[in-house]
Amino acid sequence: MKTKGRVTLPIEKGIEQEIIKLLDRWGADAVRNSDGTELIAGIKDSHMKVYSSYFPTRSDQEWARAHEEQVQQVSLMTKRITAVNKPLTINIMNGFFEEQFKVNYNNDPKKWWEVIDRTTGKVLHSSKWEYDSDNDRVIINQPILFHTYTVSFFAFQVWDSTQMYNHITNNWTKPHEIPYDVRHDETKEHVLEYLEKWLKENKDVDVVRFTTFFYHFTLIFNEMAKEKFVDWFGYSSSVSPEALKAFEEEKGYKISQEDIVDEGYYNTPFRIPKQVFRDYIDFQQKFVSELAHECVALTHKYGKEAMMFLGDNWIGTEPYGKYFESIGLDAVVGSVGNGTTLRMIADIPNVEYTEGRFLPYFFPDTFYEGNDVMKETNEIWLAARRALLRNPVDRMGYGGYLSLALKFPEFVSRIEAICDEFREIHNNMDNKKPYVAPFKVAILNAWGNLRKWQTNQVAHALWYKKIYSYVGVIECLSGMAVDVEFISFDDIIEKDISDDIGVIINAGDAGTSWSGGEYWAQEELLVKLRKWVYDGGGFIGIGEPTAYQRQGCYFQLSDVLGVDKETGYTLSYTNYDELTDGHFILQDNNTFDCGEGIKWIRSASENTEILTMDEGDINLAVNTYGKGRSVYMSGLPYSDENVDLLHRSIYWVTGNGDIEYKWTTDNIHTECACYKEAGKYIVINNSDKIQKTIVYKERVNDSIEIELNPMESKWFNI
Amino acid sequence: MKTKGRVTLPIEKGIEQEIIKLLDRWGADAVRNSDGTELIAGIKDSHMKVYSSYFPTRSDQEWARAHEEQVQQVSLMTKRITAVNKPLTINIMNGFFEEQFKVNYNNDPKKWWEVIDRTTGKVLHSSKWEYDSDNDRVIINQPILFHTYTVSFFAFQVWDSTQMYNHITNNWTKPHEIPYDVRHDETKEHVLEYLEKWLKENKDVDVVRFTTFFYHFTLIFNEMAKEKFVDWFGYSSSVSPEALKAFEEEKGYKISQEDIVDEGYYNTPFRIPKQVFRDYIDFQQKFVSELAHECVALTHKYGKEAMMFLGDNWIGTEPYGKYFESIGLDAVVGSVGNGTTLRMIADIPNVEYTEGRFLPYFFPDTFYEGNDVMKETNEIWLAARRALLRNPVDRMGYGGYLSLALKFPEFVSRIEAICDEFREIHNNMDNKKPYVAPFKVAILNAWGNLRKWQTNQVAHALWYKKIYSYVGVIECLSGMAVDVEFISFDDIIEKDISDDIGVIINAGDAGTSWSGGEYWAQEELLVKLRKWVYDGGGFIGIGEPTAYQRQGCYFQLSDVLGVDKETGYTLSYTNYDELTDGHFILQDNNTFDCGEGIKWIRSASENTEILTMDEGDINLAVNTYGKGRSVYMSGLPYSDENVDLLHRSIYWVTGNGDIEYKWTTDNIHTECACYKEAGKYIVINNSDKIQKTIVYKERVNDSIEIELNPMESKWFNI
Repeated sequence: MKTKGRVTLPIEKGIEQEIIKLLDRWGADAVRNSDGTELIAGIKDSHMKVYSSYFPTRSDQEWARAHEEQVQQVSLMTKRITAVNKPLTINIMNGFFEEQFKVNYNNDPKKWWEVIDRTTGKVLHSSKWEYDSDNDRVIINQPILFHTYTVSFFAFQVWDSTQMYNHITNNWTKPHEIPYDVRHDETKEHVLEYLEKWLKENKDVDVVRFTTFFYHFTLIFNEMAKEKFVDWFGYSSSVSPEALKAFEEEKGYKISQEDIVDEGYYNTPFRIPKQVFRDYIDFQQKFVSELAHECVALTHKYGKEAMMFLGDNWIGTEPYGKYFESIGLDAVVGSVGNGTTLRMIADIPNVEYTEGRFLPYFFPDTFYEGNDVMKETNEIWLAARRALLRNPVDRMGYGGYLSLALKFPEFVSRIEAICDEFREIHNNMDNKKPYVAPFKVAILNAWGNLRKWQTNQVAHALWYKKIYSYVGVIECLSGMAVDVEFISFDDIIEKDISDDIGVIINAGDAGTSWSGGEYWAQEELLVKLRKWVYDGGGFIGIGEPTAYQRQGCYFQLSDVLGVDKETGYTLSYTNYDELTDGHFILQDNNTFDCGEGIKWIRSASENTEILTMDEGDINLAVNTYGKGRSVYMSGLPYSDENVDLLHRSIYWVTGNGDIEYKWTTDNIHTECACYKEAGKYIVINNSDKIQKTIVYKERVNDSIEIELNPMESKWFNI
Repeated sequence: MKTKGRVTLPIEKGIEQEIIKLLDRWGADAVRNSDGTELIAGIKDSHMKVYSSYFPTRSDQEWARAHEEQVQQVSLMTKRITAVNKPLTINIMNGFFEEQFKVNYNNDPKKWWEVIDRTTGKVLHSSKWEYDSDNDRVIINQPILFHTYTVSFFAFQVWDSTQMYNHITNNWTKPHEIPYDVRHDETKEHVLEYLEKWLKENKDVDVVRFTTFFYHFTLIFNEMAKEKFVDWFGYSSSVSPEALKAFEEEKGYKISQEDIVDEGYYNTPFRIPKQVFRDYIDFQQKFVSELAHECVALTHKYGKEAMMFLGDNWIGTEPYGKYFESIGLDAVVGSVGNGTTLRMIADIPNVEYTEGRFLPYFFPDTFYEGNDVMKETNEIWLAARRALLRNPVDRMGYGGYLSLALKFPEFVSRIEAICDEFREIHNNMDNKKPYVAPFKVAILNAWGNLRKWQTNQVAHALWYKKIYSYVGVIECLSGMAVDVEFISFDDIIEKDISDDIGVIINAGDAGTSWSGGEYWAQEELLVKLRKWVYDGGGFIGIGEPTAYQRQGCYFQLSDVLGVDKETGYTLSYTNYDELTDGHFILQDNNTFDCGEGIKWIRSASENTEILTMDEGDINLAVNTYGKGRSVYMSGLPYSDENVDLLHRSIYWVTGNGDIEYKWTTDNIHTECACYKEAGKYIVINNSDKIQKTIVYKERVNDSIEIELNPMESKWFNI
């Protein structure tokens, strides 16, 4: 029986009839326009809900052009230039894209810019350098030869980052849109007035899809008009002299450009956040949320829903931040590329509903003749489906050009089935919670809950060689029958570890916010974690957990983990590491794929059992510590095998004897989710092959055996 | 025509006739006894020179047993123990071998031991702990729970480390020999008197082979009588309360046990040496050298030569240290396992002659039925021969039991040929210098000349996975036609870089003394090196050169090297690294074996040319910097291919246009050495296959083509 609803589709002019047929096949109950498409008159009149994108800071380009001094700015740092002659001339726009940025000379450079000697780390007094606004240059007359210098400066954003990205990617030729800055009261008022006018004029719109609010994540192009820098979490495009002034007024101390450009790292989330940057985030979140709330209030005034797109200009609106609730949004929509991104959206608190815009996007970079669209589509759906069963987004949708999708009939049929499966999941779950382990799993890093489901990531859903072995951890967890929390070192230092946490995971590279760096020199953190594990807690370290060279060890919890990394200082110690066979956590797997892994891991305790090694380097080991246990993994890319390994590890470290054979399966390519209150359970096949599996219900001797077709999901009554 | 001389052999009782035949075949002109063998009466009367081993601090075991309080000591640190209860009891001998060490309670533990809280790094006041001498325990009554503690204490060495090692390796059952400590005036006098008595009694001995002087390198066994810790450079077995008192008196400040045990790292040479440890080395070298000089003077008084074995109890006698000359030795003998160890011995200044005891040692661990003795023998000879041609040891020899060698006739024949080849090299070289490049190559690290030919090493000639990709650098250089210096960061900071240096190499892991760690925060070092390269110098970085996270980069000379390491902070920067083909330095090789390598190397300059990558990680790159150039390699294990690559790199970075085709060959498995003053040159085949090669003489168009049999060397007149 064909179902309908919970699906939003983009629409497009010129193929109205095909679209109407497709809306029916996919069971859509809402349509949306987007940057580059517009609503179709015919559909506006149907009973469908209508979404419309709205860009608060670039809708009125006349305003932008009339108020050049109120255009958004960015804080930029030049390349490091070594003084090989006197004077030293630095072309500050070298390496930047002139169509994106225009140097700001309006605010006195002598007051607002910083020239830093990177060899000493000292800021040069402004009398030691000159600027040349005709040629965008800084001249240091008496540099110290062979010292390296940088200039940090402000530039106006003369092309909106997303519009620029889309233009260049799709060869668009529309006029450049310039974003204006709501830090200026005049612009702020205008943004609200313009929105109100738009709300009045657009009576057919049911849902205002804010895309997004006021500040874009950091996206910097180079002089070749190619991407130079992308940080989906970056705040440097929200900075201006006005913002820094307001910060000082609010927080009571001065913030420098260096606090923003951060040696050229721009406070990437991999950096351990300094207090001043945390304060800046707080300051900007508060400001953004207050004004966003006003936009939402206006939207409600005109009887419409306010939905936020989680991306693009989302800076300051972090859904897990402390001001998000105050915005008062009805909904959030975001892009879904796997289980992690699905949970990032689905778990957002304080909204009526969430919506996932599933990838692939219908853009020519994917939908071209000869490309295997089905492979990507199925991989994303399978990964996201596991996560849906834990906590579903309320709605789903797709983005881009339907006309492109229509050229792939197999794809259209597959999405039809996926939309049906999505609705079937909702119908059967019936808003009930799935069965989960009787303890929580906590991901521990410097960011905690603010970066929930966003750990070890650079740019939204993009693959990087350096991160996939860590992102795998949360991807495995996104669809696992455990509740997951994200906690920070400060949480542990400032309060006790919550009783309901059974497992703590620390995963990341040494020196990053994810691993923790200098946090591991803090006595309270070490003592609390040691005691917690000793009393029965489970600790899982992945990559370079607790890494910080100090007082005779590199992994500061090497006693808990039972392993440490050889950095050269302990080569004099003779190594007798040997494998232990047949451990519980590896029971379903013969090998372990640790992805990029970390070399030079050696045992650090007599209790350590080494489960896999690669030429003498430990990849997988377990340890006991009092009543507690630990597992070390050198990396954990996402795969069915590693989901199983992590699941087993979680049960093993909590000391729950054998794994609880409760609503699980014995085939690693299948998983089970049970909704007791709904009286139903589902078994899914995560692979593209037929799978047979035993499904354990309430206990090990209460099981059924079933067979699932490739990628199939099957519902059963309890 | 059979030659004779320059060869020393061990002798052995019971096979006198076979030995006399062998001495003849191998052309020996000297014989020696050793620990476990004795001189044969018949040979004592021949015209051969007679060496006899002498152990200054363990020859008189009656003395040792009668002066227990004057036995040598060691500074030990327990394992790290976490306080999970009160009181905390630490069994201080846990993990140590009771037959090797006996805890010293003679010197007040409350005064001399240290209990350290490794969670805070603070030393506990002695009132906070008690010791229990009956059970070798330390009790901390009120530890801070879940802090980790260590105890550093003194123990007597009740078994000489080398004797223990030989006993356990060879299942000997002789009584344990106990070393006594010349820090005690009484023992010091006795050592001299006993030596003099011995010198008087042993009239047949021509050469006293001191094995060695007074303090053994650090060798610690565990409770299973297996090796726990070995540091061939370690000073911790030279430490005692008396030594620490004398240090304070001489240097004017107090040295603590922590200064010796160093968090449990015992100041391994991989640690960046602290000033106090440098001072301790200086203090101990001075003391050892003064007394060693007295031993040598006595030896000379009785008309004998004084030869030092470079190993075992060699601590304080470092041949490249500032007090070595004052010892006044006639000769040094040391173990040769490759080109590096050969050069370490051959380059020793201020002695009449040097001798290499070539490996393999005739011990049952090598000479057992079925083992391929020839492979090891040939590999060592080929590697050592390259180095001999640069600077030869004056004599060669073998060690162990000749009776074992005699069971391998093919081996006996091969050594006969090797001895002949060794003498042929000396005859043809005629004490003349080989042709070398017109510039020197300097290895730069924290140790400089003190650790000449000893960089990146743990224990003499032992292979470690962590080091072979760095040891390869000096192994390649040991037989290359360049003069090599070893300089320290302080050398550069305190004085100018010498004019004759053309290439500086920095090779090692981040944070080690070899790479440099915090040295790279020093302005003077950075400025001087940048200027030096900019003005035309050549810089070669291997592994993690100049690594120290600071002011926006990890490799502090990333501007010079053109590469940096991705540690997570620059993932937001988009990476456009692409390969450049056909570079000069890779001209003879299609691939590059970087050994263990270093992952995550990315380009850091627009000039960088990337020559090889492995899944996006750069292994080999070149850069230009002013008039200077640099090469980055992620590792350089020893091989014919890598000798060629390093040779080409050295010529390329010095900007000597193309490689100087002067006394080189075009086949990477062959090399040439020319002795102009002797009117001769030699071409060697480093492989076990027949090789054809062009030999370039004075210039590229003055060449000959020759063919060499496997491993062959061939001499020519110029």
